[in-house]
Amino acid sequence: MSPEVDERWMRRAIEVARKGWGTTHPNPLVGAVLADREQILAEGYHEVAGGPHAEVQALRQWEGVVPDSATLYVTLEPCSTVGRTPACTQAIIDAGIKRVVVGALDDDARHRGKGLEILRSAGIAATAGVLEQDCEDLNLIFHFFHRTGRAMIAAKVATTIDGRTAVEGGASKWITGEKSRANVHQWRRYFPAIAVGARTAIADDPSLTSRLGPKDFCPVRIIFDRTGRLVNFPNLRVLTDKFRDKTVIFVSDEAYDKVRKVVSDEVRVVRCPGEGEIRDFLLGWLANEGLHGIYVEGGSVLHSRLFAEQAVDYLFAYRAPKLFLDDRARPVAGGRYLEDPSEAITLEDCRHEIFGSDQLLRGRICYPVGKERS
Amino acid sequence: MSPEVDERWMRRAIEVARKGWGTTHPNPLVGAVLADREQILAEGYHEVAGGPHAEVQALRQWEGVVPDSATLYVTLEPCSTVGRTPACTQAIIDAGIKRVVVGALDDDARHRGKGLEILRSAGIAATAGVLEQDCEDLNLIFHFFHRTGRAMIAAKVATTIDGRTAVEGGASKWITGEKSRANVHQWRRYFPAIAVGARTAIADDPSLTSRLGPKDFCPVRIIFDRTGRLVNFPNLRVLTDKFRDKTVIFVSDEAYDKVRKVVSDEVRVVRCPGEGEIRDFLLGWLANEGLHGIYVEGGSVLHSRLFAEQAVDYLFAYRAPKLFLDDRARPVAGGRYLEDPSEAITLEDCRHEIFGSDQLLRGRICYPVGKERS
Repeated sequence: MSPEVDERWMRRAIEVARKGWGTTHPNPLVGAVLADREQILAEGYHEVAGGPHAEVQALRQWEGVVPDSATLYVTLEPCSTVGRTPACTQAIIDAGIKRVVVGALDDDARHRGKGLEILRSAGIAATAGVLEQDCEDLNLIFHFFHRTGRAMIAAKVATTIDGRTAVEGGASKWITGEKSRANVHQWRRYFPAIAVGARTAIADDPSLTSRLGPKDFCPVRIIFDRTGRLVNFPNLRVLTDKFRDKTVIFVSDEAYDKVRKVVSDEVRVVRCPGEGEIRDFLLGWLANEGLHGIYVEGGSVLHSRLFAEQAVDYLFAYRAPKLFLDDRARPVAGGRYLEDPSEAITLEDCRHEIFGSDQLLRGRICYPVGKERS
Repeated sequence: MSPEVDERWMRRAIEVARKGWGTTHPNPLVGAVLADREQILAEGYHEVAGGPHAEVQALRQWEGVVPDSATLYVTLEPCSTVGRTPACTQAIIDAGIKRVVVGALDDDARHRGKGLEILRSAGIAATAGVLEQDCEDLNLIFHFFHRTGRAMIAAKVATTIDGRTAVEGGASKWITGEKSRANVHQWRRYFPAIAVGARTAIADDPSLTSRLGPKDFCPVRIIFDRTGRLVNFPNLRVLTDKFRDKTVIFVSDEAYDKVRKVVSDEVRVVRCPGEGEIRDFLLGWLANEGLHGIYVEGGSVLHSRLFAEQAVDYLFAYRAPKLFLDDRARPVAGGRYLEDPSEAITLEDCRHEIFGSDQLLRGRICYPVGKERS
């Protein structure tokens, strides 16, 4: 098959994979396309954690014999172990498929490369790496978790060109446009948990839900509120809406009792430590809850604390075509001091997207070595 | 002709037009393609101010009779007056062309729509507006000048995600990457004049030339140095290099003598007024010199002054995938105070480009009405 045809069907497999957006966690998004040269025979995707895998879904769509000239395109290496569903490698072998093209390898140590080996041992021509970067990008959280063994902490900021996230008084509605905000709702549906600082919760009264289709989705909502300021705002949406059992307030020992007394029993209140220990605590808590990723929507106080602990792994940075030119307006975060631009925190594996007049720049955060001064 | 074919040849005409980049000022960049259905018969572009126009260049390339089925694609409305060169409308009529497709209309009041009328009166099927926005974008300065009667003042900034242009000490080498910087050199070749503040001239010692091909190009280089600080740095490149006769220092009355004494006779020293009067002075000076655009590369003090006078017409904002998170680092500009995000300065007609891992956002500046508080 020509590289162009392979890329075309892999691109289609990526599209198909996206249909599972938001319902597969902690499993990855996976798409599969069974194609015979210019023709698609069948498609499938992983729809929901615990449900059949993409390859199996595609093979179920195809009744009859698979032609020898057909290729199965899968965005992620087929699994080789029996879990809640049978191993996909066996299903592929049983179907009599002669050629398999894989996007990204499965970083799960139980699978990495093994799926390909099994297929090859069965006489199947199996290759990997077609549109690998795009296929990896489908599963930011999944790959990160399997490489590091811990949850991914992602931060989101929406700024002006001059890097401001709100005016001095705190108002940030709206810096970015509707299309950017719709994209944020996409990511809120992707991450199983979300977090904001108390100041943001109070200033914006956000619901922190993902409003995409007819039915709102609510991730686990964490409010960082060490000092218990929320007690003065008992009517906030996160404390009172129908998803209040998804709200968790992180407070200090001292603030615990007063917060517990005021908020609904359905809202969880959790003791958390202070500066310098937030990262470890948060990661431990997320692991305990089986949550492999969290989307932190700031504000600048919370972001500053997380960056100070080098806790932020990934950044989503929206930029609107606006200028405040106001030194008092809120920055993305603070707390560092640089003598030279080379001491900047950098983003790797950058992705660029355009939403209306706004731009998104997102990527993996890299902290400079030996240059932190707080 | 199908819209797809028209767009394809207009896109080619835009590419051809770009060959004149930097040598046509104050004339526009114009490209012309003579095509017969799927085949290009001839191409031409406006190469240098005073030289033949694109249409004439293309027609000269084609010997023999123009087929009745041929179309002439021109990025800008053909001129209808005899200037340094004969009117293009006449050349088109004389060539026996039956169909003309135009990108953007010519904002020059002597031409706007008249070129099309003349062609139609001669029985030619003439239409306009194919890839109009892209064709207009070719000639930012030209269109702005003919609409407003004055030079375009453009600002350029290169920032981190958190909107910083330099660390506290002033170092800004390098926030953006090589590809962004190469693009800046493109724009330095497009604008006939360039400006920086004295602080930037001293901190970076820039040459402010455009280094693209084998031969460096130098626009008119203006240094805003009211207080004459440059006298302490007589070895700066702009004061000593082979293009020093292209350097102009804007100083206060008080600083004039001391600066004049120190810098080379070839460097021009010009008295300029202070805050609140910079815009009018600058526009008057540029008009006098026949310069229709200026590219201001900051730093933040100069940008703040220009924004305070609502002098900036266009912004080029590069963003690198970096974070300083340092409140003391240099901002894009300051001096404003906002109570609400709706009071932001906004960009219109935005263009988005990617250079390596950096993003460029550029557009026309719009100042909010009745909301300035300095």
